[in-house]
Amino acid sequence: MKKIERVETGILGLDRLIEGGLVKGSASLVSGGTGTGKTIFCCQFLKHGLDNGENCLFITFEESANDIINDAASFGWELGKYVKSGKLVFEYVDPLEAKTRLGSIDEFVKKTVKEKKISRIAIDSVSVFGLYLADHYEFRKDLHKLVETLKESGATTILTAEALDGSTRFRVEEFVADALINLYGLKIGEGNFRSLQVVKMRRTRHAEDVFPFEFTSKGIVVKKDII
Amino acid sequence: MKKIERVETGILGLDRLIEGGLVKGSASLVSGGTGTGKTIFCCQFLKHGLDNGENCLFITFEESANDIINDAASFGWELGKYVKSGKLVFEYVDPLEAKTRLGSIDEFVKKTVKEKKISRIAIDSVSVFGLYLADHYEFRKDLHKLVETLKESGATTILTAEALDGSTRFRVEEFVADALINLYGLKIGEGNFRSLQVVKMRRTRHAEDVFPFEFTSKGIVVKKDII
Amino acid sequence: MKKIERVETGILGLDRLIEGGLVKGSASLVSGGTGTGKTIFCCQFLKHGLDNGENCLFITFEESANDIINDAASFGWELGKYVKSGKLVFEYVDPLEAKTRLGSIDEFVKKTVKEKKISRIAIDSVSVFGLYLADHYEFRKDLHKLVETLKESGATTILTAEALDGSTRFRVEEFVADALINLYGLKIGEGNFRSLQVVKMRRTRHAEDVFPFEFTSKGIVVKKDII
Amino acid sequence: MKKIERVETGILGLDRLIEGGLVKGSASLVSGGTGTGKTIFCCQFLKHGLDNGENCLFITFEESANDIINDAASFGWELGKYVKSGKLVFEYVDPLEAKTRLGSIDEFVKKTVKEKKISRIAIDSVSVFGLYLADHYEFRKDLHKLVETLKESGATTILTAEALDGSTRFRVEEFVADALINLYGLKIGEGNFRSLQVVKMRRTRHAEDVFPFEFTSKGIVVKKDII
Amino acid sequence: MKKIERVETGILGLDRLIEGGLVKGSASLVSGGTGTGKTIFCCQFLKHGLDNGENCLFITFEESANDIINDAASFGWELGKYVKSGKLVFEYVDPLEAKTRLGSIDEFVKKTVKEKKISRIAIDSVSVFGLYLADHYEFRKDLHKLVETLKESGATTILTAEALDGSTRFRVEEFVADALINLYGLKIGEGNFRSLQVVKMRRTRHAEDVFPFEFTSKGIVVKKDII
Amino acid sequence: MKKIERVETGILGLDRLIEGGLVKGSASLVSGGTGTGKTIFCCQFLKHGLDNGENCLFITFEESANDIINDAASFGWELGKYVKSGKLVFEYVDPLEAKTRLGSIDEFVKKTVKEKKISRIAIDSVSVFGLYLADHYEFRKDLHKLVETLKESGATTILTAEALDGSTRFRVEEFVADALINLYGLKIGEGNFRSLQVVKMRRTRHAEDVFPFEFTSKGIVVKKDII
Repeated sequence: MKKIERVETGILGLDRLIEGGLVKGSASLVSGGTGTGKTIFCCQFLKHGLDNGENCLFITFEESANDIINDAASFGWELGKYVKSGKLVFEYVDPLEAKTRLGSIDEFVKKTVKEKKISRIAIDSVSVFGLYLADHYEFRKDLHKLVETLKESGATTILTAEALDGSTRFRVEEFVADALINLYGLKIGEGNFRSLQVVKMRRTRHAEDVFPFEFTSKGIVVKKDII
Repeated sequence: MKKIERVETGILGLDRLIEGGLVKGSASLVSGGTGTGKTIFCCQFLKHGLDNGENCLFITFEESANDIINDAASFGWELGKYVKSGKLVFEYVDPLEAKTRLGSIDEFVKKTVKEKKISRIAIDSVSVFGLYLADHYEFRKDLHKLVETLKESGATTILTAEALDGSTRFRVEEFVADALINLYGLKIGEGNFRSLQVVKMRRTRHAEDVFPFEFTSKGIVVKKDII
Repeated sequence: MKKIERVETGILGLDRLIEGGLVKGSASLVSGGTGTGKTIFCCQFLKHGLDNGENCLFITFEESANDIINDAASFGWELGKYVKSGKLVFEYVDPLEAKTRLGSIDEFVKKTVKEKKISRIAIDSVSVFGLYLADHYEFRKDLHKLVETLKESGATTILTAEALDGSTRFRVEEFVADALINLYGLKIGEGNFRSLQVVKMRRTRHAEDVFPFEFTSKGIVVKKDII
Repeated sequence: MKKIERVETGILGLDRLIEGGLVKGSASLVSGGTGTGKTIFCCQFLKHGLDNGENCLFITFEESANDIINDAASFGWELGKYVKSGKLVFEYVDPLEAKTRLGSIDEFVKKTVKEKKISRIAIDSVSVFGLYLADHYEFRKDLHKLVETLKESGATTILTAEALDGSTRFRVEEFVADALINLYGLKIGEGNFRSLQVVKMRRTRHAEDVFPFEFTSKGIVVKKDII
Repeated sequence: MKKIERVETGILGLDRLIEGGLVKGSASLVSGGTGTGKTIFCCQFLKHGLDNGENCLFITFEESANDIINDAASFGWELGKYVKSGKLVFEYVDPLEAKTRLGSIDEFVKKTVKEKKISRIAIDSVSVFGLYLADHYEFRKDLHKLVETLKESGATTILTAEALDGSTRFRVEEFVADALINLYGLKIGEGNFRSLQVVKMRRTRHAEDVFPFEFTSKGIVVKKDII
Repeated sequence: MKKIERVETGILGLDRLIEGGLVKGSASLVSGGTGTGKTIFCCQFLKHGLDNGENCLFITFEESANDIINDAASFGWELGKYVKSGKLVFEYVDPLEAKTRLGSIDEFVKKTVKEKKISRIAIDSVSVFGLYLADHYEFRKDLHKLVETLKESGATTILTAEALDGSTRFRVEEFVADALINLYGLKIGEGNFRSLQVVKMRRTRHAEDVFPFEFTSKGIVVKKDII
């Protein structure tokens, strides 16, 4: 039985819930509603790798690289520094052009991971990517291919998905992923807290409870309490 | 790390919840049901800029300029005065003609912002705009382009969206925006109050609670209590 | 700032909730389920104008003029008398023929309002009108045009809409109107009462609560209690 | 003001709730789930007229004349006797053939009412009639025409409609009718009773409460209690 | 008034709820979720007839004759014995071939009932039959024809239907039947019991309550308690 | 009456609930949400057979053989050992190619079961298989054929299905199976536990309650308590 290699997320308090980190080379889905912190989760995950000398790739369908770098800066994370040094590759893909460029994203991922020796990837978000495809069937196929490419690349990946009414938008996003982490946000009338739950993680005995988390000056911090 | 410039909303009690104001150059979505005060929010936001000497643009798909100016007048806001002096540009776009004119809206925004040195824009509402497009896919594309144009213009923008059953009508409006502010209205059987919540705001540590607000003679006033 | 002219509804107890009446020249939507009193609301609104010497127009897609006149008669309102004297114009439009005749309704409204010096209009109901159009998109366009015609005519208009599960049938009816008044009806298991709520009214500081009402020999009477 | 003529339903306890009976010449919808007693309501309504010397017409899309006559017989109502004497006309229309025969139903109604001097009609059920039409739009048109024919005939009509989840199946049936009477049936976990509610009835000050009813040896008997 | 002939179901405790049995020659729908006992209901109904010397027909779209015979054997019902003696006819119809064979099912029913003097028929299930038809409209027509054939045959029939969320799958199955018996199954959080309710039965004063039942060594036994 | 042969599942605590095991040669559906343990259920079922000297087949549409073997290894199950010795056949089918290869899956199953003397099969999951078919109708047909092939092969089969909102995704998966076992997972606000329920199992008097289970170092262990 092969020892499973773990990759620390850098999310404070999360790694202890998942045997020390994500499975190396796996693709994990982080799902949550608007404003639950999915983009920050991505930044924190990459920042942790960058600080340890790893090379990283951020593909975004939502915001410009500058906007995300500025967002991260509000937590004191100087991603721009790593972009300049070439250790962090930022690729904004206009979702309106994603369809025609998708083959090249697959190619881009393969090529970039190989050339730049990338070990961490974040893709934010597959929902936006899907919104501009013609139909659900096309989305399933393209997402399937993209995730296969990601997993074959050897890098460890976080993909984000927009949750609507507590489920992923297309209800297939979680199929392609090795892990599913739900972020819960604010809700009127049910108490006002943020929380996180590891719903599934292959090859991992993960905690199954719902844990509150906070945005602190160090980013997301998962607390030890159980909700 | 670049200092983030803030733009005061002029909504009394709101700016203290969002580090002093909206991020300069960002596009924020204000979402709420019928009668929750979205148009008044727009007027108050523009009026605050006008009083400080800024130039503003109001694009409406719902009402004539006169109707909105009259509405604002019931709060003592003399928008007509600014229209006459050329500091406020009002553009009513018939939603039935929006499709054919959309390219020109993008052009109109670019040209007007540049020529008139506009720093604040309100668009009321993207839902009405969407209702007269042929399908959701077309709406997504057109909205996406419009928001890109708005953000590139350098002005700070408020877009409104109609909420149905607690979500935006097309469920994509919040994707394109940097911020999402929900207005909650009257509901039978759950108490009779108005309230506001900042659900997301990029580059901002915003308050996460639900705050009651009132329509006063000075417009919307967000109170300090938490619901 | 222009003084806003008000038009009394004649619904006892309602005008005090809306600064004395509807905004002159506006179009208000009265929405409610089957049997909540929408047609009676229309009759009472027109009857109040007729008694004050105004000329009125009633366009119905649901019932013959005779049926409505008979319904009104059960409240002692002698609409037939005004029809004879030419002060009340009744126009029944077969919804199956509305599509081909819509242009002419717009024309009919313009011409009738001008020739007969109409100051109050009731249209009952836009939902039935919509049911016989080919699709939602066509309904939106035709309703939009009709309401523009009504508002340009200078008369004050009440449109009714059928509510299903607490919302308007097509969920766009409230967009085109300056005001939205909800009528709530009978419900099993939640108490047995009728009530009314002004959800939105432009240029008006309206009461926001839910008020019980009753059908009396004088028609609808809104009571001062709050539910 | 014309005195409104009333037609007794013969449903014990119902007429006192509706000013003595249905409006003469009107078309009333009786809506309820499977097994709530709609067909029995029809039989009881016609039987009351037959016993008073009136001539009646029963159009059914669901069961053979024999089955309905047998059902009625279990309440001691000898409809077969009236069929033989020619005072009751039974017309079973196969719903699969209704589409091609609809014109002739209109003709059949006109002709039969005139020749046989029919004063009461029951049609059971418009939902089954609708199920075999190609689409909702066609149903609306055909139902609209049928009801116009019925009302022009001068006879007083009961139409039944199948309720699903508390609403009529096509959600337009109640539009065409002058009255809506809901029958409520058995429900697990909410108490086990049958009840009836007059939701709307034009030209009538009807009781608005929900009243329990029972199937007795004399048919449906509405009780004086309120639920 | 003709005396109504009754056919005992053989379900212990059920016949006393329905005046002694099903109406002879009628078609009854037994509806319930997965695992509520619909197939066992069919077997028990036929077995009761077989033991009294009647000839029976079982048409199944779900399982092979052998599987059903084996299922029945677990209650000690030796259906195989009757198949051998020719008193029980088992017809498995592959639902993928049902469409092309439907005409022949009608023919098969007519011919078999006549030749074999069949007095009881079970069809399990019309939902599976419907799942492999192209659309709801086709299902309605084909089901309608099949039930007419069954009723004309003179035999007494049980049809089963799969319930989803408490309703039949196609929501028309109950229209064609003379009776509707609901089987309720296991549900988390609402107590763990099986129960049965006669929702409608033409020409029958049936019990209206919900009765618990159990699977015993004698098959389904309906208990006298009321839930 | 033929004695029913049972096949132990190897799920600790489950066999005692189902008369000792699954019916030999039957196809059982294991349904549950993401992360409820469906793949582990499959592995444990096959591992039990392998340890007893049986030959097994695992067809997966979701993960590579290596990933599943690694997952199983975290419970100490050395499936790789059996793959090497040829007693366990792993077949990963890319769902994007399943459509064109389906005939060959049927052929593959037939051939493999015969040549390798396979007595246990797991297919994980039919939902993923269905997601890449063009429509529900095609899925029903292909699934129907696949299950027929499986049952004719003589081996005992577990199929898994993804549950959405408590039902299977396509709502037909349970039709084709002889048994339905539901796995319930984590839910916010309703307590945090895993549980299992045998909803239906042909030819079996199974326990009907909901039983909690845990993931232990020996895999799934169903406890004796009742929820």
